[in-house]
Amino acid sequence: MVAAAKEANAEILKVAFHRFQPQGVSGVVVIAESHLSIHTWPETGYAAVDFYTCGDHTDPWRACEYAAAELGAHTMLTTEVRRGIASTNGQYTHVVHEHAGSALAKRSA
Amino acid sequence: MVAAAKEANAEILKVAFHRFQPQGVSGVVVIAESHLSIHTWPETGYAAVDFYTCGDHTDPWRACEYAAAELGAHTMLTTEVRRGIASTNGQYTHVVHEHAGSALAKRSA
Repeated sequence: MVAAAKEANAEILKVAFHRFQPQGVSGVVVIAESHLSIHTWPETGYAAVDFYTCGDHTDPWRACEYAAAELGAHTMLTTEVRRGIASTNGQYTHVVHEHAGSALAKRSA
Repeated sequence: MVAAAKEANAEILKVAFHRFQPQGVSGVVVIAESHLSIHTWPETGYAAVDFYTCGDHTDPWRACEYAAAELGAHTMLTTEVRRGIASTNGQYTHVVHEHAGSALAKRSA
């Protein structure tokens, strides 16, 4: 995930990972632009990964593609959430973008 | 956020926080049940907070309500994402629940 953060052009601030027994990992990379997180369940072949970045200089999709490749993901299902959008009433909101067909990318093993 | 994690009945594994100058904080609490994260922008009165838990013994909404109260939030806009849902084809998906009206709770100052 540190490498994924670098791939997104993010500035790494803190790294906190925990390895579960007998398997699985949970971890977060706090970046100057927010955070990246991962939780894996090797026993079922599932991982839940967040790429949360701010600013125009970072590209969370590059981190996402990098992580998917490193994990050897066959299928990746993504949802984009645009956060901290200023409303006209001075409050902030977020907008969820479900990607068409849900399955963004499929790879052969 | 550590207190919020305890409020959710989560087991705390790692804590990683960074304080920005002149203001704002980014931080994550890795829990046995996934993670809690926060990013604050005091200059605009906005905070983006995630409560990601697994299992029936935790209640992310308790952590959410606790954090909102501690932050003195006037308005809280929440979206629930149910993750790692097994599909009939053996793949995993997630489901986004937009809460009715978007504004879940409003408090006077």
